[in-house]
Amino acid sequence: MENFEFCSPTKIIFGRGMESRVGAETKKYANKVLLHYSGGSIKKSGLYEKVTQSLREAGVEFVELGGVQPNPRLSLVREGIALCREHKLEMVLAVGGGSVIDSAKAIALGVPYSGDVWDFFANRAVPAEALPKGVVLTIPAAGSEASKSAVITNEDGWYKWGLNVELNRPQFAIMNPELTFTLPPYQTACGAVDIMAHIMERYFTNVTDVDLTDRLCEGALKSMIRNTLIAIKEPDNYAARAEMMWAGTLAHNDLLGTGRIGDWAAHMIEQEISAIYDVAHGAGLAVVFPAWMKYTFKRNLNTFIKFAVRVWDVDYDFDQPERTAWEGIRRLEDFYRQIGMPVTLAELGVPDDRLEEMARKAMKPWLTSVGAVSQFTSEDILEVLKLAR
Amino acid sequence: MENFEFCSPTKIIFGRGMESRVGAETKKYANKVLLHYSGGSIKKSGLYEKVTQSLREAGVEFVELGGVQPNPRLSLVREGIALCREHKLEMVLAVGGGSVIDSAKAIALGVPYSGDVWDFFANRAVPAEALPKGVVLTIPAAGSEASKSAVITNEDGWYKWGLNVELNRPQFAIMNPELTFTLPPYQTACGAVDIMAHIMERYFTNVTDVDLTDRLCEGALKSMIRNTLIAIKEPDNYAARAEMMWAGTLAHNDLLGTGRIGDWAAHMIEQEISAIYDVAHGAGLAVVFPAWMKYTFKRNLNTFIKFAVRVWDVDYDFDQPERTAWEGIRRLEDFYRQIGMPVTLAELGVPDDRLEEMARKAMKPWLTSVGAVSQFTSEDILEVLKLAR
Repeated sequence: MENFEFCSPTKIIFGRGMESRVGAETKKYANKVLLHYSGGSIKKSGLYEKVTQSLREAGVEFVELGGVQPNPRLSLVREGIALCREHKLEMVLAVGGGSVIDSAKAIALGVPYSGDVWDFFANRAVPAEALPKGVVLTIPAAGSEASKSAVITNEDGWYKWGLNVELNRPQFAIMNPELTFTLPPYQTACGAVDIMAHIMERYFTNVTDVDLTDRLCEGALKSMIRNTLIAIKEPDNYAARAEMMWAGTLAHNDLLGTGRIGDWAAHMIEQEISAIYDVAHGAGLAVVFPAWMKYTFKRNLNTFIKFAVRVWDVDYDFDQPERTAWEGIRRLEDFYRQIGMPVTLAELGVPDDRLEEMARKAMKPWLTSVGAVSQFTSEDILEVLKLAR
Repeated sequence: MENFEFCSPTKIIFGRGMESRVGAETKKYANKVLLHYSGGSIKKSGLYEKVTQSLREAGVEFVELGGVQPNPRLSLVREGIALCREHKLEMVLAVGGGSVIDSAKAIALGVPYSGDVWDFFANRAVPAEALPKGVVLTIPAAGSEASKSAVITNEDGWYKWGLNVELNRPQFAIMNPELTFTLPPYQTACGAVDIMAHIMERYFTNVTDVDLTDRLCEGALKSMIRNTLIAIKEPDNYAARAEMMWAGTLAHNDLLGTGRIGDWAAHMIEQEISAIYDVAHGAGLAVVFPAWMKYTFKRNLNTFIKFAVRVWDVDYDFDQPERTAWEGIRRLEDFYRQIGMPVTLAELGVPDDRLEEMARKAMKPWLTSVGAVSQFTSEDILEVLKLAR
């Protein structure tokens, strides 16, 4: 086990009807906030009404900024920063999923900073402060509601870069599983793939003696497999939606990574795909993860066998243990198919004529390799992308 | 799943040599602190030297109060409160295990309160503020390093009462598994029993649809079983000590109880035993828990079967499922014996002539039953104690 620091200070307020508490919680931090969201879905669902009413009742003024897109854009972040400065807003309240929250995090970092907020994502500056952030979560997926990460896409070159700093953690996150009943199966599945990827990136470590977190990861994965299958079939199954929603937070608040070194190569490769083709992050991961596994499993065979046996209940093959690992990868792919996810670039609708460009871009200027465990070169990444065709 | 709030703000600093950071971490909150500990063991081990040197280097002044006993006493808490007031101390730094930390928590609550600190434990007042608290942990057991609970024994009547409030959570906890190498097997085992009891009190709920936390609990229990057996045999096995130490924190910071209703009857019954006979809390729990299980398992059969199958790998008995549950209880008892724990009151050295008194005292004046799930009367508790003889 590696030495570690862990602190997950975001206050989670979880359960039916909890969105009515957003005003009172927000008021603890601010009198004037930026209300940040995506588009019409929160208006159609009635959530917008509930949130703004709760804010008014608590005496919290707000300025609105909607329009966040999947793979949230730097231009809108800059707009948000300008709005906060102009109206002297003291907090950013994100109502939505990971894209809205990530956009809110970037705005919160940019407001007190005299330079350009992209400096932080481009590794040219380290943030010293941020506005507080609150969340009303509508999509379990990114885990951004309690995580320290934010990923922003710079349209000038279509760079999709992430920033992991403690300052990014929201002050509170309100999570009502009922708000996810209206998520269509495809989006539900994308979220599940993302959540499971956050767990697996931490699980496939080369750090030994991490028994407790191994087992916590395995339990979370088993629960995700079971409950995703239910939620796809029964969109308004509260129990299944609740398990997925809470798993999504725990998958990415770093609890499951304590003492471990995560890999993140699959995430970094996927980011290059969705930066260019604007595909859903989860769908991209469903394509990249099995390819990454097939390319890399022999380097970390025991962990892949453990994954197969403990997560997928694969019978250990005593004669040819390697087959056990293969069977685990096969079952993951099967599961992705079962929940309607693509598992090849072709199924994802991504042509194979820019694989070299993606492999090259994945190698950020400040990196010498990709993936803390994988230690990939551009050549390795290209091989993974080819396996994903 | 029940609605819940969850926030675990204690900053965990985990790993080899981390005690050297205590001065710098403390300095963030205070210039003058109460250094609170038990007895000679931290001086013999050299930890006292390391901690005080780190405090001096960081420019933190300290006043000392040693002498904390297992089942920490109200009289010493009052002494600590007086010392803090006299020297205008701004923080309590606990160096030790659960007793020291609980004592520190009570002192931290008492300093800013104009009445008597026992008011909080006797349910006569609710605390509004507390001094900050820091921890250097030496015994994985109580989970007090990140929990909201504190248990104090009032020598005037030998009442051992607990208080659960968010204010009790320490600001930071420094956890170096190496500091636990010198724990003798009996104390190691007592700690393991306590940690597992914290998980099981949450596990045996009657709340349904708690799949994720079920699995997290099961994983943590499996890891505890495995690593306790190793640590008992190899006291300086870093990996095993580290797993136990981190499990001890997660067992009681409420993560594993999210969305569930815990029971706590076994804990409340044990508290009556250790209040009178001053036995180690863990040893008392090893006696009470199996008796509680035998008395109550039929009311919650499915969960006890799940416990047997998933935690102890018991083969499901399709003909007589109840036998599956029995086998799980039997294996837990076996495990306790294997790590040198008593499983009867006689083995614990507790006579059976005051069982009625304990059963009566367990029913605190403000309770109508004991155990949120068990809903025990004094008569039920007496039956459990009789089963434990």
